[in-house]
Amino acid sequence: MAVDRSVAPSLRPSDDALRVATAVDGDRLWRRIEELAAFGALPGGGVNRQALSPEEIAARRHLLAIAEARGLTVGGDAAGNLFLRLEGRDPTLPPVLSGSHLDSQPTGGRFDGVWGVLAALEVLETLRDHELRPLRSIEMVAWMNEEGSRFAPGMMGSEAFAGRRTLAEIRATADAAGETVGDALDRLVAALPPVPARPLGFPVAAYVEAHIEQGPVLEAEGRTIGIVTGIQGKQTMRVSVTGEEAHAGTRAMAERRDALMGALRIVDAMAKTVAAADPAMFFTVGRFEVFPNAPSVVPGRVRFSTDLRHAATDLLRATGACLRDAAETAGSPCAVTVEPLVDAAASIFAPTLRARVAGAAEALDFAAMDILSAAGHDARHLVDLAPTAMIFVPSRDGVSHAEHEWTDPADVVAGTRVLAAVLWDLAEADHLASTREEGESA
Amino acid sequence: MAVDRSVAPSLRPSDDALRVATAVDGDRLWRRIEELAAFGALPGGGVNRQALSPEEIAARRHLLAIAEARGLTVGGDAAGNLFLRLEGRDPTLPPVLSGSHLDSQPTGGRFDGVWGVLAALEVLETLRDHELRPLRSIEMVAWMNEEGSRFAPGMMGSEAFAGRRTLAEIRATADAAGETVGDALDRLVAALPPVPARPLGFPVAAYVEAHIEQGPVLEAEGRTIGIVTGIQGKQTMRVSVTGEEAHAGTRAMAERRDALMGALRIVDAMAKTVAAADPAMFFTVGRFEVFPNAPSVVPGRVRFSTDLRHAATDLLRATGACLRDAAETAGSPCAVTVEPLVDAAASIFAPTLRARVAGAAEALDFAAMDILSAAGHDARHLVDLAPTAMIFVPSRDGVSHAEHEWTDPADVVAGTRVLAAVLWDLAEADHLASTREEGESA
Repeated sequence: MAVDRSVAPSLRPSDDALRVATAVDGDRLWRRIEELAAFGALPGGGVNRQALSPEEIAARRHLLAIAEARGLTVGGDAAGNLFLRLEGRDPTLPPVLSGSHLDSQPTGGRFDGVWGVLAALEVLETLRDHELRPLRSIEMVAWMNEEGSRFAPGMMGSEAFAGRRTLAEIRATADAAGETVGDALDRLVAALPPVPARPLGFPVAAYVEAHIEQGPVLEAEGRTIGIVTGIQGKQTMRVSVTGEEAHAGTRAMAERRDALMGALRIVDAMAKTVAAADPAMFFTVGRFEVFPNAPSVVPGRVRFSTDLRHAATDLLRATGACLRDAAETAGSPCAVTVEPLVDAAASIFAPTLRARVAGAAEALDFAAMDILSAAGHDARHLVDLAPTAMIFVPSRDGVSHAEHEWTDPADVVAGTRVLAAVLWDLAEADHLASTREEGESA
Repeated sequence: MAVDRSVAPSLRPSDDALRVATAVDGDRLWRRIEELAAFGALPGGGVNRQALSPEEIAARRHLLAIAEARGLTVGGDAAGNLFLRLEGRDPTLPPVLSGSHLDSQPTGGRFDGVWGVLAALEVLETLRDHELRPLRSIEMVAWMNEEGSRFAPGMMGSEAFAGRRTLAEIRATADAAGETVGDALDRLVAALPPVPARPLGFPVAAYVEAHIEQGPVLEAEGRTIGIVTGIQGKQTMRVSVTGEEAHAGTRAMAERRDALMGALRIVDAMAKTVAAADPAMFFTVGRFEVFPNAPSVVPGRVRFSTDLRHAATDLLRATGACLRDAAETAGSPCAVTVEPLVDAAASIFAPTLRARVAGAAEALDFAAMDILSAAGHDARHLVDLAPTAMIFVPSRDGVSHAEHEWTDPADVVAGTRVLAAVLWDLAEADHLASTREEGESA
């Protein structure tokens, strides 16, 4: 992970923005995080709140109740993205958008995604507390299925919103039990009070996503705020290895086509390929399924996922091609098929938005640094639609996607104050530079 | 697999035994096999009829209906073993027992186990057709959970009957969904008409099990009947590898404790150990489970099964000890625990019973050969209780534990005729040698 310790040029926030930042209610924010952690709570303090599960639907219901109590306008689009809006003085201007996701990994933490949603909500609640109304509307968004653990690949809501995947394609995706996203979305709509419809890809003035770092850099460097310069690229695949089922006690070893042994050779060859390309490249086989998965049957079929990430798009793609070759070579005598899923280039965020984040952190006296996101985020898909930025706060021991994921309350509040200052100034700007001027996507 | 092509001394069957053998109704037997294949039928012609599943319970109900129609006495013991008895002229003498199992692998074939049960039933039906009543009773048995795919390890019914495992121990075993054998047995009893209770381990005069070979030897040698000399030894273990869950896009490769990668190193080291010990040794990792099994989470835990088989008990056990060492060494930096499950020495069957099988095959003009069973069978656990033997018939291409498992009707009938001749003469004998004289267990 490339870390540039020189902070980008900073743009000082307005005095009003600093007043909004200071007014953020840290106690309420922390209470909201605890409330949300109850939906899908696990014994170890984490959550299992996978996309469109009953637990995630219950979390959405909770947000709708808050919206009603606080007089926020609710909306939902056909991809299951949820919007909570504080009307600006000129409701015809494109809004400033901020949020993240509510869904978790099967054994996920209570900050990943949730904090970004609740930080945006806290900004809206703070403005309500003080009856402040900016020029542009500000909207909180909870994107549908960022994690991709139940319905793979993830980031479905933001990709559909950005027009990078069609609604028909995401609706057809099925989970392990055979249920499709389409069915799950229809059940989501049926389970909640009616929500006014928003079009996919409505005009957005700017997008700012707050998120925990999910890595060790900010903690190691002693910084509170990460000014995210961009997101590393990612390629994922699904590999299927087909051998032949046989009896574990009679089929001679030399005559077996053992799909498990074939898959192990492939994963080993892939890991060596990645290590040779760049030790800083990330390679993970997170899902691995064996059929028929019985102790005395030589496995006839294995299906596994691969996840490859790097900051340099070219090296990422070249290595991904080598992985496909490795799969086809090392799996013999089993038959191997490789299905590419995600192919996301590295993204670079809008320089002027990064300068606003840097300026707010400086004015509020939080130690900050530039940082490249090693994890993927919904922000990746917003860069074509609007100037986009992200704000990171530290993750204890760099742990995420695990129950003991933790961020200190002081850091959670600091990140939210920075977000509040940035959102206020963006919402007060009568003219914002277009995406083309502000950002680029590599 | 050691194959001794010299056939053991043969003991010629009586003329009555040959008449019974000839009277076996091959059409009825084949129809019964087709009837049973409907319980848990899969699209590819195989079955999913795992132990104590609704499908296996339905198959038992079908046998009870046949027993009622044919005037056979039914019984069941506390381990879920089912007995169908044709009363002999002297019901006080220990019966001759014959059978196998009805349960299958998740994608199993229609002959494995089932044929042995139906071959014994066909002998009883043939005797009923001709109103023949031998001196001793003859009983068909369907042992509970031979396969061990749902509740591991298998052969629970025969082990409990032979006193090798306690009822309490098998009842406490849970399947992947958390249901115990105890609960499943109680549901079995509730689901079927009441069946008179039989004690575990009641006296048995002799045990003969008919079974498909599940290997390629008889087919390759052009023989119809395998005179089984014994069963190779088997050791199974459950290996748990514990690392640390982490985010696939942020945790540096060098800092990971990836349980999947640890498990792959262990399996690789084990496979090399086995190949070095003896290329004829069988080693299988049939079940392999990853947690949390999500594409973008570095796996925190893996649990897998090992299955090791060899004809020489000493070499088997020495190699098993090396596998445990390999697991503990190769898994680092993950924590590894190894739980031994099955440790079954090789078994040798009773010479005089083998001579009866050889004599029946010879008199009926079926090409026969001695063969060591590479697969485990319930017969392994009967050797301490009574003189025990097995009869094999060919498996096409040596395939078993797979939907396309196949044995030709002519071979199925031939094996049943041999069984009929052997069972009749055993049931007519007023004195049978004790286990100690007839068999040995190595």
